[in-house]
Amino acid sequence: LGIDINNPEFVGEHFKFVRASFLKVDLLDKDQVENILSSFRPDYILHLASYSSVAYSWKHPVSAFVNNSNIFLNLIDQVRILALPCRILSIGSSEEYGSVQKENLPLREESVTKPSSPYAVARVSQEMLSQVYAHSYGIDIVLTRSFNHIGPGQRELFATSSFAKKLIIIKHDAALQRKVTVGNLEVVRDFVDVRDVARAYHLLLHKGKKGEIYNICSGVGHSLKQILLMMMKMEELDVELIVDPELIRPEENNFVIGSNDKICRELGWAPKIPIEESIRDILKFWDDQLQNPN
Amino acid sequence: LGIDINNPEFVGEHFKFVRASFLKVDLLDKDQVENILSSFRPDYILHLASYSSVAYSWKHPVSAFVNNSNIFLNLIDQVRILALPCRILSIGSSEEYGSVQKENLPLREESVTKPSSPYAVARVSQEMLSQVYAHSYGIDIVLTRSFNHIGPGQRELFATSSFAKKLIIIKHDAALQRKVTVGNLEVVRDFVDVRDVARAYHLLLHKGKKGEIYNICSGVGHSLKQILLMMMKMEELDVELIVDPELIRPEENNFVIGSNDKICRELGWAPKIPIEESIRDILKFWDDQLQNPN
Repeated sequence: LGIDINNPEFVGEHFKFVRASFLKVDLLDKDQVENILSSFRPDYILHLASYSSVAYSWKHPVSAFVNNSNIFLNLIDQVRILALPCRILSIGSSEEYGSVQKENLPLREESVTKPSSPYAVARVSQEMLSQVYAHSYGIDIVLTRSFNHIGPGQRELFATSSFAKKLIIIKHDAALQRKVTVGNLEVVRDFVDVRDVARAYHLLLHKGKKGEIYNICSGVGHSLKQILLMMMKMEELDVELIVDPELIRPEENNFVIGSNDKICRELGWAPKIPIEESIRDILKFWDDQLQNPN
Repeated sequence: LGIDINNPEFVGEHFKFVRASFLKVDLLDKDQVENILSSFRPDYILHLASYSSVAYSWKHPVSAFVNNSNIFLNLIDQVRILALPCRILSIGSSEEYGSVQKENLPLREESVTKPSSPYAVARVSQEMLSQVYAHSYGIDIVLTRSFNHIGPGQRELFATSSFAKKLIIIKHDAALQRKVTVGNLEVVRDFVDVRDVARAYHLLLHKGKKGEIYNICSGVGHSLKQILLMMMKMEELDVELIVDPELIRPEENNFVIGSNDKICRELGWAPKIPIEESIRDILKFWDDQLQNPN
């Protein structure tokens, strides 16, 4: 929503409670970035613009890299050149950790990064750039490694949202086959509700330590299969799961579970929304969308 | 020489013994890269194009990043798209290791990378991209971490060559003050002669293992001060050294010494040119250049 230059979406339902104005800026265009920064002179930059789909990055590695690492570098370099006294939140990803053995879980900030997808490489690059800018140029950057977000409103490019939409479509159309196409359902992820993530980002912008990395996660793992079964149970639906080899990725991290000890200890953050509530809200979101398309 | 799109130098002295033709290609231009690769269909790509100066990267971090990571990514992605059966040598740098304690020397391929300059970040990014392309897309890439090159013909952007030129200028002009401006002379580097490096690259293209990283280094450390004293002794010159704060970098790795065990053991490579011979040849190079400018 609103983070893709080709398809920005700044109006309508999602932003009706937001008192803000929006501008479309190509973050790859140095001059545009310079103009907006030097005229607006922000105190805080919450940099969420990113091609954040691992699946997309396998198909379009160059575009994924450029629209993560390069847009971020353009932004922080203009902050450096303009010498803006401004705090930047650099969003990283649990994907940076790569494939780990179960015995090395949960993932902690000091764990080794071993990026195994183009997306993950882009995120580690962004993190390394952030460290250089924070430690050597003195730019005020706080970093995250954010785990898998879920929540109402998420694009169906992401598994949880895609599952929910498929189930709701089947639920509303008795003529449809009770079948859902899926990828590898065995992968375990640490899902955290986007509303808890938003609270964490707000805290980090105000109280995070410069140059430090913070995991944002629930600390609990669920397989995609568990998520799907939870949804089927809530909707009282029984569907057959068909594995599509096209949806199996060249390289997959089987277990991703993080530790949120650091942000809990240092900033008092803790996730508040249990996964059942997230799932229920996601199903409700698609139910509303599909019944009242606007 | 010939690796900067803005200032290519393909003719003259340096290439008189080379039976090859040259083309000027902007590696950031996808179409140009595609055209040259699909028409020439190389068996080997020795990718040396790079903005390889750490000092430059501190001043122009965006340009340094783009002209390392992005040009490399464009190249390997076109090899992937065209499915060329071609081996690529990806050149990395000892700068990737970052600042280490003396007790952690010598640096080995399995040592942790901790890039502390924009240039080093770009090189680690390139390495991570190489690993993803080799392991997940199956592209045939062999990797190096090459330590500080020295040798006749090197641009004076680099310390050793710059020192030599300054000394030779003083030697030939009795009217000049016996003073040389320098940066931090205490830093210790592992210098390896470019002619030994070239032999290593040839070996790696033919016999290196796909997806593997090899240190290219001498295994011996010298401080920049030692190098300068060696030059002064050879030229029988005594000059005063003036430290210019402008030449002190925001972040400096004090000790960089590598282990070449892996490439020695696996491929039988060993450096053949002692540092005294390299230094003598560098001084002779500048002597020739300054006496017979062409």
